[in-house]
Amino acid sequence: MCTGLSYTTKNHYFGRNLDLEFSYNEKVTITPRNFPFEFRRVPPLPTHHAIIGMATTADGFPLYYDGTNEKGLSMAGLNFPDNADYKPEAADKTNIAPFEFIPWVLAQFDTVTQVETALTKVNLVDIPFNDDFPQSPLHWIISDSDRSLAVESVRSGLRVYDNPYGVLTNNPTFDIQSFNLNNYMHLSTNPPENNFSDQLRFDTYSRGMGAIGLPGDLSSASRFAKAVFTKMNSISGTSESESLSQFFQILGSVAQQRGCVRVGGEDSYEITIYSSCCNTDTGVYYYTTYENSQITGVDMHKVDLDSEELVDYPLTKGQQIAMHN
Amino acid sequence: MCTGLSYTTKNHYFGRNLDLEFSYNEKVTITPRNFPFEFRRVPPLPTHHAIIGMATTADGFPLYYDGTNEKGLSMAGLNFPDNADYKPEAADKTNIAPFEFIPWVLAQFDTVTQVETALTKVNLVDIPFNDDFPQSPLHWIISDSDRSLAVESVRSGLRVYDNPYGVLTNNPTFDIQSFNLNNYMHLSTNPPENNFSDQLRFDTYSRGMGAIGLPGDLSSASRFAKAVFTKMNSISGTSESESLSQFFQILGSVAQQRGCVRVGGEDSYEITIYSSCCNTDTGVYYYTTYENSQITGVDMHKVDLDSEELVDYPLTKGQQIAMHN
Amino acid sequence: MCTGLSYTTKNHYFGRNLDLEFSYNEKVTITPRNFPFEFRRVPPLPTHHAIIGMATTADGFPLYYDGTNEKGLSMAGLNFPDNADYKPEAADKTNIAPFEFIPWVLAQFDTVTQVETALTKVNLVDIPFNDDFPQSPLHWIISDSDRSLAVESVRSGLRVYDNPYGVLTNNPTFDIQSFNLNNYMHLSTNPPENNFSDQLRFDTYSRGMGAIGLPGDLSSASRFAKAVFTKMNSISGTSESESLSQFFQILGSVAQQRGCVRVGGEDSYEITIYSSCCNTDTGVYYYTTYENSQITGVDMHKVDLDSEELVDYPLTKGQQIAMHN
Amino acid sequence: MCTGLSYTTKNHYFGRNLDLEFSYNEKVTITPRNFPFEFRRVPPLPTHHAIIGMATTADGFPLYYDGTNEKGLSMAGLNFPDNADYKPEAADKTNIAPFEFIPWVLAQFDTVTQVETALTKVNLVDIPFNDDFPQSPLHWIISDSDRSLAVESVRSGLRVYDNPYGVLTNNPTFDIQSFNLNNYMHLSTNPPENNFSDQLRFDTYSRGMGAIGLPGDLSSASRFAKAVFTKMNSISGTSESESLSQFFQILGSVAQQRGCVRVGGEDSYEITIYSSCCNTDTGVYYYTTYENSQITGVDMHKVDLDSEELVDYPLTKGQQIAMHN
Repeated sequence: MCTGLSYTTKNHYFGRNLDLEFSYNEKVTITPRNFPFEFRRVPPLPTHHAIIGMATTADGFPLYYDGTNEKGLSMAGLNFPDNADYKPEAADKTNIAPFEFIPWVLAQFDTVTQVETALTKVNLVDIPFNDDFPQSPLHWIISDSDRSLAVESVRSGLRVYDNPYGVLTNNPTFDIQSFNLNNYMHLSTNPPENNFSDQLRFDTYSRGMGAIGLPGDLSSASRFAKAVFTKMNSISGTSESESLSQFFQILGSVAQQRGCVRVGGEDSYEITIYSSCCNTDTGVYYYTTYENSQITGVDMHKVDLDSEELVDYPLTKGQQIAMHN
Repeated sequence: MCTGLSYTTKNHYFGRNLDLEFSYNEKVTITPRNFPFEFRRVPPLPTHHAIIGMATTADGFPLYYDGTNEKGLSMAGLNFPDNADYKPEAADKTNIAPFEFIPWVLAQFDTVTQVETALTKVNLVDIPFNDDFPQSPLHWIISDSDRSLAVESVRSGLRVYDNPYGVLTNNPTFDIQSFNLNNYMHLSTNPPENNFSDQLRFDTYSRGMGAIGLPGDLSSASRFAKAVFTKMNSISGTSESESLSQFFQILGSVAQQRGCVRVGGEDSYEITIYSSCCNTDTGVYYYTTYENSQITGVDMHKVDLDSEELVDYPLTKGQQIAMHN
Repeated sequence: MCTGLSYTTKNHYFGRNLDLEFSYNEKVTITPRNFPFEFRRVPPLPTHHAIIGMATTADGFPLYYDGTNEKGLSMAGLNFPDNADYKPEAADKTNIAPFEFIPWVLAQFDTVTQVETALTKVNLVDIPFNDDFPQSPLHWIISDSDRSLAVESVRSGLRVYDNPYGVLTNNPTFDIQSFNLNNYMHLSTNPPENNFSDQLRFDTYSRGMGAIGLPGDLSSASRFAKAVFTKMNSISGTSESESLSQFFQILGSVAQQRGCVRVGGEDSYEITIYSSCCNTDTGVYYYTTYENSQITGVDMHKVDLDSEELVDYPLTKGQQIAMHN
Repeated sequence: MCTGLSYTTKNHYFGRNLDLEFSYNEKVTITPRNFPFEFRRVPPLPTHHAIIGMATTADGFPLYYDGTNEKGLSMAGLNFPDNADYKPEAADKTNIAPFEFIPWVLAQFDTVTQVETALTKVNLVDIPFNDDFPQSPLHWIISDSDRSLAVESVRSGLRVYDNPYGVLTNNPTFDIQSFNLNNYMHLSTNPPENNFSDQLRFDTYSRGMGAIGLPGDLSSASRFAKAVFTKMNSISGTSESESLSQFFQILGSVAQQRGCVRVGGEDSYEITIYSSCCNTDTGVYYYTTYENSQITGVDMHKVDLDSEELVDYPLTKGQQIAMHN
């Protein structure tokens, strides 16, 4: 389904895999500071932080899948079927529609800790964007260079979790995902040691055996374990090239290959439609797509961030091959 | 360690991940038809098929890691520590040194079936390239568009296996790798069905749960299972862009991220140094590297294949980023 | 740690494994109807249902580990470390100390549904038995021939779960234990089918391969999955001998062997101290111990159930071997 | 299918689970020294070591499933379908029919090392007992108090393996079973340590988590891993009662419960028909059955071992319950 990731080398990077069986014509979209943000139940924000990220724009509104603002705060929405439970409007709450949640957060906050405080009053209210866009069941990862949150609106209310992994996938709820990691605590990047019996001899027949037990299927709980293990043990140089490489390698470890996850009918398969990585310090948003492994970038600071108009960039389609001869 | 792959859409593609903690300055290397191939124990081949692939050239000899000839026959050598057992020279055999094996095969044969016949007389003889290059313990995958072999020189002799998967990783021996797949036969790209108890209800809480049980660590046996599952279930369009995308996605499913496999000392980690994919019908050899996800290509037919001189192309280093703005 | 089990053939059977590294001199203990039950915060029950089960008697009070009353209602307490959270006394609640919980339930209720109703008012209050018996962190399985509950007093309050498995082990909380079973829904008592690829052939090299993926370690989550699978798929004749055999075989599937689970110091190991099985229809309580595999029984109806005095039977120690010659 | 076990405390114990869906009326059978052993292709043994074990007697010949001789040498045959390959008669070999193999070994050898020497000349010849008993595909565990062997007649010939585990189950071949144990070398009887990341905290929520990854299904490869782990880590006192208890507990860890392994038709299930344990120092053969958990014993030295007549004891059927009241 999806995997969100926060990773820091010298700079902080934030991005995600979008895993779906279809595409909504999403584009890299910059919302400048004076784009008039209107919300369904809370006051509009005529001026606000600039945002860059991946969005489908509908009726002039940028429906962000993931984004980063000019302060380096980032947020992504990931599929959370059956668990996401949006609420009726509550008089004493800040009522935010799910599709407004990313813009509302990124438009005004600078840090995760500020968001955390604001969330104590937030009610994710069950208002769909319009009749053509059914409500998406989502949960969110919100990150800055210091820390990450997981935010889930479930039957019992809005749950805000500290997310020390900087990783989010999909079901189950974040508390169960975290609990399940206990079953992997013995996994190691080092070769395994013989704890089985000192009367027997074993053969470390391959490198990498210290992580035997790490799951490799593409279900959301398995991707969570795999992505957390890969991210927490990642080693990278600090240059932009090295950092981007490592970031996309981590996302690649949980990418979905066409054919491996059949959905619904005979010929429908979930794939990693795009992988993104925003350098939240420089405001450059990078992406690859299933069929274009070259990294493509958009620099938010190359556009007029004081404008009122959305700027978007259609995704490059097809492999961009560099021929040596 | 490594993963070799043969995959067919409209064309046939062959390639591999090279997973190591260091690099030998390998380059994309074309051996034209009149390059004088000399061998240690068998007659030289002054003229032969042209070959393209990844090689380190030493003392004028192309030490191929993997390659494809102009007939579409392909071959790659993969690490096979402790199991590889090279033999003394045998008077009644065709004595080939391990480092000669890829050139010797690709220089003269057109199909896997031809190779299979020739292998009945082959003895992989324990002659190192020179004192600076210790003998590499290897086994090989040999593929054409119809079929693949796994070839292993072990204590009991030269074993040649039909390889219906078109996948090779490393240890254990191919017969055990194949046997172990029986333990995964229930894995599915479809959602799991309840076989547990008709008195209980279960929740398919994520897509992809049909493959729960597929391993995700980077040991060679786990990569074999994961790569075979991904390859056998792969779905791809037939265009070059789609085919390459799918091929590199399959290799990506078993790529090694820096930090996940520690070797020897504190700061040494195995990574996927390069991933290659040769269109064996067109003779174009593509590759990506750990730090350059853009596909780079070399077309063997753009050079003079009747020459006597090796032609090589150093690998492009660092991310080649396409900026939209 | 422990496994509780409810199982029905013609009669209903209830019992458990007690897994610990030491024993508290527990005995099969019958509480007759006129034994004066006094409680810390609720009124005494001078007359009540008779109870049979395993208990340590201290200060004249039967501290039941598990028991069954003359109406066929059964209950067992199982270790629930870190999760069990007992509460301060609550004025509007029925305040029951954890050590009183089994007697209080079995003394007065006939069915699980009656208990379920009563539990809506129960507060498990943090009163230890005395200074010598520290509070045990427990949760409970309550069963009759129709259904079972899991009852857990956790931070968020008293949680009462319908338990369609009739199985309880230990951590994590019952909702997570249930959720985790989704990952095993594909397991089958039938041979596995090839879902992997219709282009490959696999070998069902052993019977029992349909359940590959079922865990076999002795942690509480693994024992839960194994015991539920074994119980839900159990087949038994209806005679007392067949029913008891199957019941103890199910418990045996998750028994703990000395040496496999080291606790604390060098020489301390958790083992299955006893396994019990009460025919809740006849009131005969059977048990085996780690070192006596013969089934020993006590019939509650062979004692004067109108008495005021506890009757107990020390456990038979050591293997009782029947020699043929 | 089956599990064989050799275990030593103060005395040496040898036995097995017989897992099948039916029974051949097997009995504890003593072959005294002067019972005339006749063989199909090798000379008869009119006088020999006395043997005790489980056998079906047909046409006056004891078809042993497992047995121990008066010297303490033991041997059991276990199912080995598809892999067992019996040979044509060979002129220069000691031609033993599979059904003669246990009697032939136990009749004349004192130690495993003697057997090992004799096996260099043995050819297991494809002669069935008679038309009513089809050839059973078997392999064997042979043990004394010092060591064990695994013996397999496969396509490539008779393979004799040192068996440091003292455990045998069924398929695959012993070399692959041994190899697969490498994947479990990290399993521990101690609580798991955090190797995953020193930046994260994990919760050892249950005892026994150090062995997470140990399989619990009843296939032969999974039973092998589970039985070896349990046996190699077993702790036992040295008394007969403690030793027997531990031995049957180890066998119990891989016992098969009715309903968990369906074979063929709708109502056929493999179960652990009997479990045996012979004290090879005293010659007392103990057993339990699926439906009688009490240990029953037969002492070979209580019969006239110089007789010519087989002595057998039908198995006790049904639970032998000791009532306290």
